[in-house]
Amino acid sequence: MPYFDSASSAPLHPVARQALLASLDEGWADPSRLYREGRRAALLLDAAREAAAEAVGCRPDELVFTSSGTRAVHSAIEGALSGRRRVGRHLVLSAVEHSSVLHAAAALEAAGGSSTEVPVDRSGAVDPAAYGEALRADTALACLQSANHEVGTEQPVARTAEICAAGGVPLLVDAAQSLGWGPVPDGWSLLAASAHKWGGPAGVGLLAVRKGVRFAPQGPADERESGRAPGFENIPAVVAAAASLRAVRAEAAAESVRLRALVDRIRGALGGGLVPDVEVVGDPVRRLPHLVTFSCLYVDGETLLHELDRAEFSVSSGSSCTSSTLTPSHVLKAMGVLTEGNIRVSLPAGTTGAEVDRFLEVLPGVVAGARERLGAPSSAASSPAPRASLVVDALGRRCPIPVIELAKVIGEVPVGGTVTVLADDEAARLDIPAWCEMREQEYVGEEPADRGSAYVVRRLL
Amino acid sequence: MPYFDSASSAPLHPVARQALLASLDEGWADPSRLYREGRRAALLLDAAREAAAEAVGCRPDELVFTSSGTRAVHSAIEGALSGRRRVGRHLVLSAVEHSSVLHAAAALEAAGGSSTEVPVDRSGAVDPAAYGEALRADTALACLQSANHEVGTEQPVARTAEICAAGGVPLLVDAAQSLGWGPVPDGWSLLAASAHKWGGPAGVGLLAVRKGVRFAPQGPADERESGRAPGFENIPAVVAAAASLRAVRAEAAAESVRLRALVDRIRGALGGGLVPDVEVVGDPVRRLPHLVTFSCLYVDGETLLHELDRAEFSVSSGSSCTSSTLTPSHVLKAMGVLTEGNIRVSLPAGTTGAEVDRFLEVLPGVVAGARERLGAPSSAASSPAPRASLVVDALGRRCPIPVIELAKVIGEVPVGGTVTVLADDEAARLDIPAWCEMREQEYVGEEPADRGSAYVVRRLL
Repeated sequence: MPYFDSASSAPLHPVARQALLASLDEGWADPSRLYREGRRAALLLDAAREAAAEAVGCRPDELVFTSSGTRAVHSAIEGALSGRRRVGRHLVLSAVEHSSVLHAAAALEAAGGSSTEVPVDRSGAVDPAAYGEALRADTALACLQSANHEVGTEQPVARTAEICAAGGVPLLVDAAQSLGWGPVPDGWSLLAASAHKWGGPAGVGLLAVRKGVRFAPQGPADERESGRAPGFENIPAVVAAAASLRAVRAEAAAESVRLRALVDRIRGALGGGLVPDVEVVGDPVRRLPHLVTFSCLYVDGETLLHELDRAEFSVSSGSSCTSSTLTPSHVLKAMGVLTEGNIRVSLPAGTTGAEVDRFLEVLPGVVAGARERLGAPSSAASSPAPRASLVVDALGRRCPIPVIELAKVIGEVPVGGTVTVLADDEAARLDIPAWCEMREQEYVGEEPADRGSAYVVRRLL
Repeated sequence: MPYFDSASSAPLHPVARQALLASLDEGWADPSRLYREGRRAALLLDAAREAAAEAVGCRPDELVFTSSGTRAVHSAIEGALSGRRRVGRHLVLSAVEHSSVLHAAAALEAAGGSSTEVPVDRSGAVDPAAYGEALRADTALACLQSANHEVGTEQPVARTAEICAAGGVPLLVDAAQSLGWGPVPDGWSLLAASAHKWGGPAGVGLLAVRKGVRFAPQGPADERESGRAPGFENIPAVVAAAASLRAVRAEAAAESVRLRALVDRIRGALGGGLVPDVEVVGDPVRRLPHLVTFSCLYVDGETLLHELDRAEFSVSSGSSCTSSTLTPSHVLKAMGVLTEGNIRVSLPAGTTGAEVDRFLEVLPGVVAGARERLGAPSSAASSPAPRASLVVDALGRRCPIPVIELAKVIGEVPVGGTVTVLADDEAARLDIPAWCEMREQEYVGEEPADRGSAYVVRRLL
C-alpha cells in the first residue's frame, strides 16, 4: 500500500522508533532536577542537542527543541520581530512560504505591523534580488523556505542570505522540507524544522538562533530550553528526533539519487504524454529529490485523491476542492500555474521502482475516468459552424467545470474570436489563464460581471 | 532505588508505554488527510479525545490536546483573557499557583493588565470568600489549582467556582496535580492538565473549555485542535496519555488509600519526633494522597537533597538554596512556614511500605549529619550568663545559618530580652518568623539596617 505523501508526514524511521523505546525508561524525569533520574534525563537531552546541532550546522547552545515545526516558526518570527522592534515591524517573506509563516505574518499585520510578499517565477523560485528590493529601513526580519513543500523547488537561500546580510536584516530559513536531505546553505540567522518530516516522531521541532541575532522570546516566561520553548521537555521524542536525523542524513546521499531517478521516471512519463493535458510544475532540476507535482486539466483534485486512495495510493492535492476553504493552494496561485486536478507525489525513503511503476499504470485510467464522468472535451473535439464570439455561463459551477466548458466551445469560434466565461468559483481566476498558457491561447483578461467575473479568452490556434 | 518525586514527573505507566508502542505504526500520518493513513490517525485521535473527555468530565468537542501542561495553562489564560477583553484585563489567582500561572499573570501585567493574588492560610488553602472579595467589575478570569503541587493541599474548588459563577467570572482550574486521582469538582469553566504528571508521556497537555465560555486563541492562526493548539498533532503520545489516564483512574481508589497510609506513616513519624525541630506543612486531611512536605530547622535543603540522593532517594525541595534564583518557594512563603531544610516527598504509584520505612530509617541520620556539619544548636543548649539583648551578625551568610545563629544565642538573653539578627539572605525574612512560630518565641519585626535587614526576636520562654 504505497504512501506517497511524505511531505505531509513521514512514517517513523526505524532508528527513531528504536531511540524512542530506549529512552522511555531513562528520559521521563525532569532534567533540571539534581537527583540521578534527573541527571540521566539531562544527559540524554544534552546528547540529543549536540547531535541535532551538528546536523543543523550550529552550536548546541544556539539550538532549542520546540513542540512542533509550527511552534518553531511562530517562535522564531515572534522572537526575532520583538528582538528588533526598535528597527521596525516590517517582515519580508516569499509568496510560497508554509502556512505557519503566512499565519505569523498575518498576526503581525493584525497587530499593526506590515509585510511584503516576494513573488516567485513559474517554477516557484524567488529572485534573490527581489528580496533586496523588498527590504526597507524598518524591516525586522526576512523569511525564506529552503525548498517548497508543495512543488519541491529549492530556493536560492545562500544568495538571499547574502543580500539580507548586506541589508543588516536577519534571515529565517524554514528548513522543514529539506533538513533530512542535508544542511541548509550558510548564511541563515534563524532556522526552523520539524522532526516528523524526516521520519522522526511528532511533537519535536527545532529552532536555531545564531549567536548575535537579537531575539526576545514572547509569551509568558518559562525557564526551560533557554526560555525559548515553554513546557516540560519531551526527552524520549527529542532523542528519537536527533537519532533519526543523523540516520536519515547518513542515508541521504544514496537515497536522494535513487528517489530522484524515480521522480524523473514520473516526470518523464507525464512529459511523454502518459496522461494528456497535464502540466508538471516546479523546477525540474533545482528541487527536492523525492517530490513531484502536476495538474490535470478538466478534472477535480478531490476525485483524483479519492480514486487513487481506492487504488491504494496516498497523495495530496493543492486543488481548491480539496481545501476546507475551497480556495486553491497559495503556492500554485503564486506560481501562476494550473490548480485543477492537482496531485503532489512525495516519496518516502524506501519507495520501490515497482510502486512507482504501478502508480504510472493506474494514473491514466483514474484521470480518464474522472474526465469522462465530468464530460470533459477530448483533445480532438469536433467543431460546429464557427461564431465570432461566445459566452459560457458557468456561474455556480465549481472547478474544473468552468475550464471544461471553455475547452468545449473554443473550437466554435474562429481564430481571433473570443470566448467569455462567466464564473464565480475562485479557482477559475487561476485556471483559465493557466489553461490559455498550456493551450497557447490568449488570455485577454477579467471583466466585472453582475455575478462572479467574466474571463475573456481569444482563440489563437 | 526509590524515586519519591512523582509530583515533578511520574515514570511512564505500563499502559502508556503499551499504547504508545501500539500507535506508533498507525498514528504518524496527518489526521486531516483523507487517505487511509490519515483516516486511521484521525480515528486514533478521536478515540483518545473521547477517553480523555470522559475522564475530565466534559464533551469531546470541549477538549483539545496541547504540547504540555504549561502550554495548556498559558493558552487557557491568554484565550480567556482575550475572549473577555471587553469586560477588562484583571486576573484573580491564588498566591500558591504553579509558576506557569504566575508567569502568565506577570505577562498580563507587563502588557498593561492587572492581577490580584488571593492569600492562603498556614495550611496552603485559599478561602473561597477571599476570591469573592478579589473579583472586580473588570475581572476577566479567576484561576485556582485543584491541589497544590508543593504541599499537596486541596483547594475548595467547588465553592470557589460557585462564587466566581455568581460574579459572572469564569474559573480556570489547573488540575495538573490531581487529575490522575479523580475528576475535578463541577463548576470549572476551563481546565488544564499535564499527562506526564499521571504517568502519561511528556509532550501532552489537556485544555478543556466549556461551551459558552468566551475564548479567543492568541498567536498566529492554525487550524489544528479547533485552533487552540497549533502544530502537527502528536497522536501516539496523545493516545498514550488518554489510555494511561483511564488506567490510572481505574487504580486510583485503591492506590490512593494505600499511598495515603504510607504518607500518614511519614507524617506520624515526623510528628512523633523521629527528627527533632521539623515542621510538617500542608493540610493533614484535605490533601493529595501521595504527597507530604516538611521543613527541618538548622539545615539547608541542598545538603538534604544531596545526601538523600546518595542514599538513593530522589526528592525535591522548595528551599532557597535549591533554586536557581536563590529565593525560597513562593508557596512556602505564602503559607508563612519555614523554608529551610525543605523536603517534598511525592510517592509514585506502586511505592512499597518497605521503601518508605527505609526512607524513615535514613532521614534522621541525614538531617543530624547536616546539622552537625553546620554547628546547629542541639535542643538542650547550655546557657551562659544572660545579657539583656544581643545582636547577631549573619550578613553574607546563607540559609540556614542566620536561623542557626539565632537559635544558638536565644538562651543567652533573659525571658523578655531580645536578639537582633542582621541578615541579607532572602530566606531569613521567612524563616526567622517561622522559627519563632515553631519555638513559641515572639517575632517583633524587621527593621532597616545599613546592609540587609535587622530581624528582632523576643525570648518568651
